[in-house]
Order: sequence, then structure tokens, then C-alpha cells
Amino acid sequence: MDNRPIGIFDSGLGGLTAVKEIIKILPNEDLVYLGDTARVPYGTRSKEIVTKFSFEDANFLLSKNVKCIVIACNTASALAGKELKEKLNIPVFEVISPTLKYAESVSKNGKIGVIGTQGTINSNAYKVSFSKACPLFVPFIEEGKIDDEALKLVAKDYLSDFKKEKIDTLIMGCTHYPIIKNIIEKEMEQNVSLIDPGSSVAKELKEFLIKNNMLNNQKQIGKINYFVTDYTEHFLKVAEMFLGHKIEDNLKKVEI
Amino acid sequence: MDNRPIGIFDSGLGGLTAVKEIIKILPNEDLVYLGDTARVPYGTRSKEIVTKFSFEDANFLLSKNVKCIVIACNTASALAGKELKEKLNIPVFEVISPTLKYAESVSKNGKIGVIGTQGTINSNAYKVSFSKACPLFVPFIEEGKIDDEALKLVAKDYLSDFKKEKIDTLIMGCTHYPIIKNIIEKEMEQNVSLIDPGSSVAKELKEFLIKNNMLNNQKQIGKINYFVTDYTEHFLKVAEMFLGHKIEDNLKKVEI
Repeated sequence: MDNRPIGIFDSGLGGLTAVKEIIKILPNEDLVYLGDTARVPYGTRSKEIVTKFSFEDANFLLSKNVKCIVIACNTASALAGKELKEKLNIPVFEVISPTLKYAESVSKNGKIGVIGTQGTINSNAYKVSFSKACPLFVPFIEEGKIDDEALKLVAKDYLSDFKKEKIDTLIMGCTHYPIIKNIIEKEMEQNVSLIDPGSSVAKELKEFLIKNNMLNNQKQIGKINYFVTDYTEHFLKVAEMFLGHKIEDNLKKVEI
Repeated sequence: MDNRPIGIFDSGLGGLTAVKEIIKILPNEDLVYLGDTARVPYGTRSKEIVTKFSFEDANFLLSKNVKCIVIACNTASALAGKELKEKLNIPVFEVISPTLKYAESVSKNGKIGVIGTQGTINSNAYKVSFSKACPLFVPFIEEGKIDDEALKLVAKDYLSDFKKEKIDTLIMGCTHYPIIKNIIEKEMEQNVSLIDPGSSVAKELKEFLIKNNMLNNQKQIGKINYFVTDYTEHFLKVAEMFLGHKIEDNLKKVEI
């Protein structure tokens, strides 16, 4: 057993969808979450800058004595995941490998698509045949316009190629997207499996902790400490949307 | 005369709409532009963080021996303009005061509205009766979707209250918005004067330089050096959209 907390970071608050999945299947683990809200989003930035920011995020988590780190951000996973895994001295989980593996096990016709930020899509980290950057999804979600006619038009535009190609599995390659799962599903019309990276990485994490005898053996529900690099009322609202409950009580603003 | 360059900064590349206006009326001035593309946008962030970033931007410009600084960003002007003016030892121009003054001179019925980022609107820096944060305009513009049906729906939603209130003057309180001036104009239907902060601050700057005998007396067209804190192909495209021509040749990536 290893009772140190699990460290999780994201460019902002989207990673909370991954936290939600981790809590579900690892309820006794303590978690430390860092959202780099002062510099969100990462999805439009270069590999160099995303790598720099990701190491700063990871170093903050290391200072909290975490036993492993989950990169709960597709862009950071795609652009900096490999380097973080190589250079950090603790286990690092990124969302892409487990998600891709799971998508491949689910797809029947082998036609898998991925949607994500510009950074994730350009990196080609998700090695699938069909991909599309959907940069407007995140701002719509962050504004809480998640059932908007304009969003539906945007989704129609982004997803039309996937429909033509008859993909049967679509990876939501950005931790924000599970929030608009219904819109994406409705737009795809046909029977498409939507894959949530948060859920895939949570499963991989659990298997690893069991296999390496690193589970937290406390009986009570784990504590979660949330850290952000910038704090606004709006960020709080967004956090609540992702997590389903408020986080003020365990939230601190930090400089990293 | 003062042949040092004019320093201009923005959270990203929107400030290039102000550069365009400055070039138009002060063609012989040398300019140094800094776009903080590694941390764009500022519009969603707190006063504390925007102030921190703005001082870092200004200090970079000071290191380039500028004779004055133009804050070509409404959010930075609104949240950090006062403090920059107080603490820096050179003249600082922010976009809000000259824009507001101009809007007041243009309005006939005294009903002035302002649209901007969450940060600008929440700050209440534009002291007008009608205001609305329009956070989705920037992402639409940055994606180049500037004549999109979805954007028109979003504009309709954002601007409906202004129409009801019969405002006759609307301040485009974000340097991105002049790019979608047509969409805003069409949506407002009635005869509304749209005010561009870039143009107002350029005029104020010119008057100041003349009055204080600080114009650059060179005969040739001024040189412009562009600096960004992150560099991607996409940023280049966006820059071209704002400025109307390419900037690669005089562009450098810097850490600030």
C-alpha cells in the first residue's frame, strides 16, 4: 500500500471530468488536483510552451508528495506526455494510450475518429484515421452554452466528415467534451460509441495501483485538495459543472 | 523629437487592430509590439493575474527602450491600466478613456453600450449604462469563422438587449471585434455608431506626441518589430487577419 495522494493536473478545469471518474472507481484515494487556470487553454499553444507549462504543473504536484501523476489534459498528454514519462521519477499516466486502446477494443468496423483541440489533433498523438480539431467546443462549454442552437450548428459543421466516413467509435479527445456528449451523440445520428478519456485513464490507473500494491488502504473516503493558478467566480461555476458539486472548501490559489 | 520606438502590448494578437490604426496616422514611428500568446486570453482571468502579466509585458517593452507604452488590450486596460500608469516612469496609454470620450461625443441620445470580455465587462471600467460580455466572439474570430451562421446566432443572442434599449453608440470593447464589425452592424439593424478603441487610442497617442514634441522625425516609414511569447502557424494566420499582411520577417519569440 501507498497512502500518498495521487496528483492530477490539467490546463484548467476540464480535467475535473477525469477526477470524477477516478473518484468513482478509487473512492479511498487522496487526490491533489492542479488546474493551471492562469494559463488555460493549452490547446492552441506550441509543443514547446505546453511542455514547459506541463513540467511546472508536474513539479508542483511533486512538491505535494504524490505517488503518481495523471495528466488529465489531452493536449498536455499529446505534446508533453512522452517527455514527462521519461524525465519524472514517478509513474506518469497520460490519457491518450489507454483511450486509444479502449477505442480499438470497442470499434467493430475499425473506423475510429477523434475530436480535440488544435494542439492534440495537429500532434497526431491519437493514431486514428479520422480526426478533427473542434476549437469552439471548449468556449461554448466554458460559457455554459451547452444546449445552444449555435453550438448545434458548430457541431454539425465539425462532425459532418465523420458521418460521411461512417466511423463507429469517436474519441472525445478533450476533457471538456463529455459535458456535451448529448449534442455530439445526437449530431452523429448513427450508432457511435463515444469514448471518454477520463474513464479510460481512471481504469488504467486503478489496474496499475492494484498490480503494484500501491492502493491507499484507508477505510474512509479520500480527501481531495484542489489548487488553481488563478481564481475567479466564473472558474468556480465551471468547476461545478464539470464535477457536479462545489469545490470552494478545498480550493487554494497558488503560484507555480 | 524623440526617435525611440513606441511600445504596444496585448494579451495576444488582437492588439494588431490598434497597430493598424497607429500605422495609419503615425507612419514614421518605429513600433515594438509584444503579444503574450503563451498566456492569451486575458479576458477570463482575475484582476490580480492580469495585472501581474501586464507588468511583465510592460517591463519587456521598457527593456526595448520605448518612449511610451500603449496597452492595446481592453482587459489589461480595464484591470491594470491605472496601476501601470501610476507605477511606470513613462507615459502609458490605455484604450478605455479615449474610447469612452469619443463614444460620448458621438452619441446623440446618450445611450451608449459596450461589448467586451468577461474581465472588461465585470470591471465596469467603461462607465456606460448598457454592457454585455461576449466571450464567444474571440474564439469564433480566432478560428476564422467570421461569416458563420453560428456566429450570427451568437451575435443575435448577445446583442438583443442593446436593440431593445435603442442604444445609438456601441463600443467594441475588445480589439478582436473590429474583425466582425459587419456582423455586429447587421445584427444591430438600426443606425448605430460602432466605436473602435484602436482608432481612439491612436488619435490620443498622436495628439500627445505632437503636444510634447515627441514625434519621430525620420523621413522613412517606421520599422515594426513584433515579439510573441509563443509561436504557432495558427497564430501567424490570425496575425495576418488582424493586420492585413504577413509579419514573419520581423517576428521573434521571446520569454518574458
